Amino acid sequence: MSLVVVGSVALDSVETPGETRENVLGGSAVFFSYAASFFTPVRLVSVVGGDWPAEHTELLRSRNIDTAGLQVVAGAKTFRWRGKYLEDMNDRETLDVQLNVMEQFDPVLSEEYRRCKFLFLANDPPDLQIRILEQCPGAMLTMADTMDLWINSQRAGLMDLLGRVDGFVLNDSEAKMLTGEENLVRAGHAVRKLGPRFVVIKKGEHGAMFFSRHETYVLPAFPTPNVIDPTGAGDSFAGGMMGYLAEQGSFEPATLKQAMAYGTLAASFTVEGFSLDGLKKIEREDLDRRMEEYRKMLSF
Amino acid sequence: MSLVVVGSVALDSVETPGETRENVLGGSAVFFSYAASFFTPVRLVSVVGGDWPAEHTELLRSRNIDTAGLQVVAGAKTFRWRGKYLEDMNDRETLDVQLNVMEQFDPVLSEEYRRCKFLFLANDPPDLQIRILEQCPGAMLTMADTMDLWINSQRAGLMDLLGRVDGFVLNDSEAKMLTGEENLVRAGHAVRKLGPRFVVIKKGEHGAMFFSRHETYVLPAFPTPNVIDPTGAGDSFAGGMMGYLAEQGSFEPATLKQAMAYGTLAASFTVEGFSLDGLKKIEREDLDRRMEEYRKMLSF
Repeated sequence: MSLVVVGSVALDSVETPGETRENVLGGSAVFFSYAASFFTPVRLVSVVGGDWPAEHTELLRSRNIDTAGLQVVAGAKTFRWRGKYLEDMNDRETLDVQLNVMEQFDPVLSEEYRRCKFLFLANDPPDLQIRILEQCPGAMLTMADTMDLWINSQRAGLMDLLGRVDGFVLNDSEAKMLTGEENLVRAGHAVRKLGPRFVVIKKGEHGAMFFSRHETYVLPAFPTPNVIDPTGAGDSFAGGMMGYLAEQGSFEPATLKQAMAYGTLAASFTVEGFSLDGLKKIEREDLDRRMEEYRKMLSF
Repeated sequence: MSLVVVGSVALDSVETPGETRENVLGGSAVFFSYAASFFTPVRLVSVVGGDWPAEHTELLRSRNIDTAGLQVVAGAKTFRWRGKYLEDMNDRETLDVQLNVMEQFDPVLSEEYRRCKFLFLANDPPDLQIRILEQCPGAMLTMADTMDLWINSQRAGLMDLLGRVDGFVLNDSEAKMLTGEENLVRAGHAVRKLGPRFVVIKKGEHGAMFFSRHETYVLPAFPTPNVIDPTGAGDSFAGGMMGYLAEQGSFEPATLKQAMAYGTLAASFTVEGFSLDGLKKIEREDLDRRMEEYRKMLSF
């Protein structure tokens, strides 16, 4: 079923202990779209500047990602992020953010996009996420992500958003910050009680937790010795998860758990290369092959 | 099959954000023994002072834990440890250690104990662990634990030990410290290459990883909202794991994975109370019931 993602498209500069890459393709909507594209066509809504290399758009199109919603503002610059990973690759510092064209981002979706059945609101200010949500009243499943900045600075808007989305995705430190609960099981259910039918807490190299009224579970990350660049892992997780749900056209408990597993594996490929390199190397059958290994790993 | 554990017996004082307990029953060999006792009889080798409450020995005996190897030195004091857990319960500070009677600990095992088939060397100086290992040349399976102190101060002895044991258990920060590898998959295999046939990295609330020549896997911790006191979780993990292996009399790959799961669940009960309170509330069937939940959690 139709899947729309609204979020950032960026040129990232990433410093890791091993290597630095300048101005590589990034952004939450890009990682989400690419990961989801293994399962279903995706419609990407974002904005870039006149400095945007056309080859990046071509790459997305080659993956059955509809870029009709990717606005190009000729006189402006694309959003840029620069980050540095520390030795253990779990901690990162944001060194520089240039919002540029994202600063004015407030998209109006086309009629066709508004009829989407699955909608993902990647990290954006909550009031913006709500304005997009309101454009898609017929969506069967809506999910949103957030970040620490909005938890601290736009809590009222975030609470409003939480009352409106079906699923909410955030990382472990954000869940603790939002709820004041140090125990992640308690934190997950506390977020759920703020509105969403289900909540996913992403724990990076330690996997992801799922919380609904009747279920609490955790799936470990797929153990990989080759962590090159964790950028985009969380968005790839969400893309793999929601791409699979849109493909299935369902969000039954069993489908959701399978989707959590696909999200986990999409993220495991993303971290194995810079930018989209890890995902560009694979096809759906590589995800399915790793899924077999992952299932076997968790069977005893 | 016969299982011997050599390690500490202690009186712990534990400060948590919620509550403080003074001089409660603790020590690596105590948590290990109690967790293993759900599966098999255990023989405990340790030493205590004249201040040791006889009721603690009675409790262990009631669990089919043989305390013939628990030496009581009338004129000395029992080992004491005081620790404080921070808000998130994963970080702890050791506030005070009084080795007391443990300082002279250098046990000579009885003939019967020396014929054990399964031997666990809880955290102790590596040279002491080796002296015990040498007393049990007929053991089918030997496993050892360690701590940061020995990695820093007795590396040569630790390397010797690693060349002699079948299985080695350590936590994530210790594995990184020992190998210099920040990626835990690499760290686990690097430890394995130092000698043991298999290595277990304990990740606390994030579960445990297993490494052998042909296998790499991670099992998540059982998600519990009630973490009261994490003290002894790692030793309970090892006890549940090795108790199950001794019960089965085997350490085939499938048995080892099942044992990893039992270790995980033993630890999950331990953290639900101070001292042994979490384990004292349960019987083997509670572990089996949680195992069913755990299996279901990891099935999709």
